[in-house]
Amino acid sequence: MKFKLLSKDKFSQARWGRIFTLHGSVDTPVFIPVGTQGTVKAISPEELEEIGIEIILCNIYHLYLRPGEKIIQKMGGLHKFINWERSIITDSGGYQIFSISPLQQPTDEGVKFKSHIDGSEHFLTPEEVLKMQLSLGVDIMLVLDECIPYPATYHQAEVALKRTLKWARRSKLFRENDERGLFGIVQGGTFKDLRKKSVEELVQLNFDGYALGGLSVGEPLSLREEIIEWTSNYLPTTRPRYLMGVGTPEEILRDISLGVDIFDCALPTRIARNGGVFTSRGKKNLRNAIYKEDPRPLDPECKCYTCRNYSRAYLRHLLWAKEILGMRLTTYHNLYFLANLMRKVRKSIKEGKFEEFKKDFLEKYEGDR
Amino acid sequence: MKFKLLSKDKFSQARWGRIFTLHGSVDTPVFIPVGTQGTVKAISPEELEEIGIEIILCNIYHLYLRPGEKIIQKMGGLHKFINWERSIITDSGGYQIFSISPLQQPTDEGVKFKSHIDGSEHFLTPEEVLKMQLSLGVDIMLVLDECIPYPATYHQAEVALKRTLKWARRSKLFRENDERGLFGIVQGGTFKDLRKKSVEELVQLNFDGYALGGLSVGEPLSLREEIIEWTSNYLPTTRPRYLMGVGTPEEILRDISLGVDIFDCALPTRIARNGGVFTSRGKKNLRNAIYKEDPRPLDPECKCYTCRNYSRAYLRHLLWAKEILGMRLTTYHNLYFLANLMRKVRKSIKEGKFEEFKKDFLEKYEGDR
Repeated sequence: MKFKLLSKDKFSQARWGRIFTLHGSVDTPVFIPVGTQGTVKAISPEELEEIGIEIILCNIYHLYLRPGEKIIQKMGGLHKFINWERSIITDSGGYQIFSISPLQQPTDEGVKFKSHIDGSEHFLTPEEVLKMQLSLGVDIMLVLDECIPYPATYHQAEVALKRTLKWARRSKLFRENDERGLFGIVQGGTFKDLRKKSVEELVQLNFDGYALGGLSVGEPLSLREEIIEWTSNYLPTTRPRYLMGVGTPEEILRDISLGVDIFDCALPTRIARNGGVFTSRGKKNLRNAIYKEDPRPLDPECKCYTCRNYSRAYLRHLLWAKEILGMRLTTYHNLYFLANLMRKVRKSIKEGKFEEFKKDFLEKYEGDR
Repeated sequence: MKFKLLSKDKFSQARWGRIFTLHGSVDTPVFIPVGTQGTVKAISPEELEEIGIEIILCNIYHLYLRPGEKIIQKMGGLHKFINWERSIITDSGGYQIFSISPLQQPTDEGVKFKSHIDGSEHFLTPEEVLKMQLSLGVDIMLVLDECIPYPATYHQAEVALKRTLKWARRSKLFRENDERGLFGIVQGGTFKDLRKKSVEELVQLNFDGYALGGLSVGEPLSLREEIIEWTSNYLPTTRPRYLMGVGTPEEILRDISLGVDIFDCALPTRIARNGGVFTSRGKKNLRNAIYKEDPRPLDPECKCYTCRNYSRAYLRHLLWAKEILGMRLTTYHNLYFLANLMRKVRKSIKEGKFEEFKKDFLEKYEGDR
């Protein structure tokens, strides 16, 4: 994996860059759709390509439990298994182990946890998590980390960080010298000195990119942005920065200003399945009665398949009738909306007009509220 | 609507024909996918076109209750509302009123029933049901009929038939003289003399086609086929015959031999969502553990999108993980399988080889069991 910085905004930390992987290139800033169990919910690989998606995220915790590494490997690797020829990044499973597993016991050696599916017991080490990602053949791997809840005490955050850094060192040592990317994950809760320590130690290990973990877990937005800005200052400009778990248009734009290149979040696809859609005039909920007889497309400014062919009234009908097509069409729209937003963001950075673009977009997006 | 008989099999009652509607032509024998609430479950209109589907069925009972006739009309009619430019046939709602509504009271005037959604009371007459179909702008309409359960007494069947025939006469009288097709529905339960009476009276009214109703409701297969053959003998060869509610490959082929031209059934799409798939070697259930590590496509002889791109192992994973893409892909396959089967059936009729084709297909399809 390689990262090339193509352009840097003069008035903010916003950057336009390009990641080269074994399966193509990915322009940043980028929003990565989440395909937890080996499929972006409700959407086909061809539709993702049509939208212009260059990379998706899959989840090691989920794929490890079901269908299991062995089957995916037997089927020729993850790309072939899921019929996706572009880039794949896999989350290490750390976040899931510490959030949805019904029991977790981290030690310096690794982490013991129970499956949320059948309660079976498992033990994973940082090395095993990487081995799995390598055997699936993914393009960008993440190290195993220990995630703490918010709020957490300084002591909790410090203990978890120390372990996470130990794991990061082992991960870096273990890494086979191939062309795949390996990202470290910055932790340290909401404590600035811990975040700084985390970055400094990770940067010494020289990862291919740096993820900001342990954010978007319930902390106030202002605190999150403070931590992002603070952390970002200590990260090398030559590596991509990946903010995990953020996915609303307004937050993405603000965090791009703070120097973030990569985002992922299940929110855009999850809210879509319940009728929540992004539009140039803000987020709307299609289930609302005001759309009952509304012949307009979701967003009159949008050129996506959904907006070119369907009325709000029909989409609302499909959602109330619990029809799968409704979820397909709103998911398609939300992913298109973000992909299109990112295209405009990159263009504006290239043209030196990012802050202007952001201001105009947010004025319109937040004006209707 | 017009129907042209293109070819007639020498060794059976099988026919190749073509229906011309305001939205194109439909070659028969044809299997019509069911789009109850204005969408064929899990599938997009473009995918239906890709599969080669020329007509879909929507349901007046469901659309009347939700979203309601008024909204569809406001949105420019059913075709525009659901983004489908080919033919649409609508079921009158008779079957639904008498099967899923929690209360039904038929009188000679019409039928009072309660909504299965919110329990609200409604009253519909044969005229209103047609008015609705006209206002939605569908291509082929069905008359309102009274459906009886199986088993039913002779008396029950006779009373219901008399009412159904009265309604049929009123429907024919009411019909606006436009280019849409209007089909009568043959009833009479499992009683041959009632079925004969039903056909004779309907044929005098000169409908554009004849549906066989009240079958596939629990009666033994042999009795059903006896009734189909018996009824078929009394139907004019110049009109299409439509067997409602039949949708397995083996039954479709046998009923084509008995002179049936049109089929519809929710089964192929419903079983698909639960992992039931048609293959040239019989119906299989993908949830079965034997497919866990199976790299083969659903049906190695099938050329559909699903079979060209996905393994049984991946599809099984998606189904167990309750992923929407799994239901999309199996639904796509089942519809393609039937559409492709119908293409082969028509070709074989044209070439005078239908019975041979049927024998070969069924030997292979039923051989694996």
